[in-house]
Amino acid sequence: MRSQGHDGRGRPRLEQSRRPGNTAREEILDAAAELFTTIGYAGTSTRRIADAVGIRQASLYHHFATKDDILDALLAGTVDEALRLAGELLTGPGPARSRLRGLVIADCSQLCASRWNLGALYLLPELRIERFAQFRASREELRRRYRALAAQVIAECDGIADADDLPFRLVESVINRRSDNEECTPETPSVIADAALRILGC
Amino acid sequence: MRSQGHDGRGRPRLEQSRRPGNTAREEILDAAAELFTTIGYAGTSTRRIADAVGIRQASLYHHFATKDDILDALLAGTVDEALRLAGELLTGPGPARSRLRGLVIADCSQLCASRWNLGALYLLPELRIERFAQFRASREELRRRYRALAAQVIAECDGIADADDLPFRLVESVINRRSDNEECTPETPSVIADAALRILGC
Repeated sequence: MRSQGHDGRGRPRLEQSRRPGNTAREEILDAAAELFTTIGYAGTSTRRIADAVGIRQASLYHHFATKDDILDALLAGTVDEALRLAGELLTGPGPARSRLRGLVIADCSQLCASRWNLGALYLLPELRIERFAQFRASREELRRRYRALAAQVIAECDGIADADDLPFRLVESVINRRSDNEECTPETPSVIADAALRILGC
Repeated sequence: MRSQGHDGRGRPRLEQSRRPGNTAREEILDAAAELFTTIGYAGTSTRRIADAVGIRQASLYHHFATKDDILDALLAGTVDEALRLAGELLTGPGPARSRLRGLVIADCSQLCASRWNLGALYLLPELRIERFAQFRASREELRRRYRALAAQVIAECDGIADADDLPFRLVESVINRRSDNEECTPETPSVIADAALRILGC
């Protein structure tokens, strides 16, 4: 994985000069996301992340006190926008099925477009500790909003009550798909959105 | 996690005298499955597995040469029976939708009933190495058989062609559900099976 090239400070970089991010913080997050999703969370040290960015470990600690803090910031990035949108759409105007469709398309598009497949970290046993309680609560709240919106759709189209959790699951299956080395196509979000409505019996 | 109790040989056990398995091999697999899914794969040593069973590390090596070998045996156990059944049902008699339904029910039931939620390990970056090529090929073949059976259903009911990968994904969502501490109910397999048919447009 590691490029043999060195930057100006003579440090090896994972991907020379091509790491996205306008700030050191963004570069750290990108390098960590790459390492966590390719080598694994337990196997990645903060030292290795600092090396991949081309900064000193002490500089990394200026931005993030621990490796868990980096993971927490990355995980939050996978749910925060969907959570906000779900809250807005839950009480918005128009047919419930259009609102659910909008949420599924936006959330799938985000999961498809992210440079690293961070959702693959959701199932890590390491996330069960207190440090990640807030992330777990956010994802649980996102799931609750999906269910509430799905329940509105089910009421609207006289659908199948016990399917209300499945649209959320179907959206997250994009993560498994990417993990199986099958990247999304431009159609993936709308394929998933249509399937989510069928699954509710509409 | 670890119980403070000791067995006859004075070794601490994870769960004293209640580990299932008629043979040392089965006890090792059960202890490893517990540790991998609660502590994490990278963070579990063969020493810790041996301790959890109450055997010496040397005895463990008699059954499994490496930790990867233990993981490989556990992963194979999550797909082998579904793979066999899928092969049988793919060319079996009767309507395709009954055959797909039978596969989904059997596979979900197995994923729900397993003592440890081993599917949570599918997304580990550690599985990308050559050692797990055979497991990855088996799971890929299972997925291919799901798709082929789904394509028969789609042809049968004039359904939605681009949904053919979704029944497999929906079945594996049982793993995410368990990982979110929501255990299956007795109805889960048939809820998923009915949803898999709706998702195909039937």
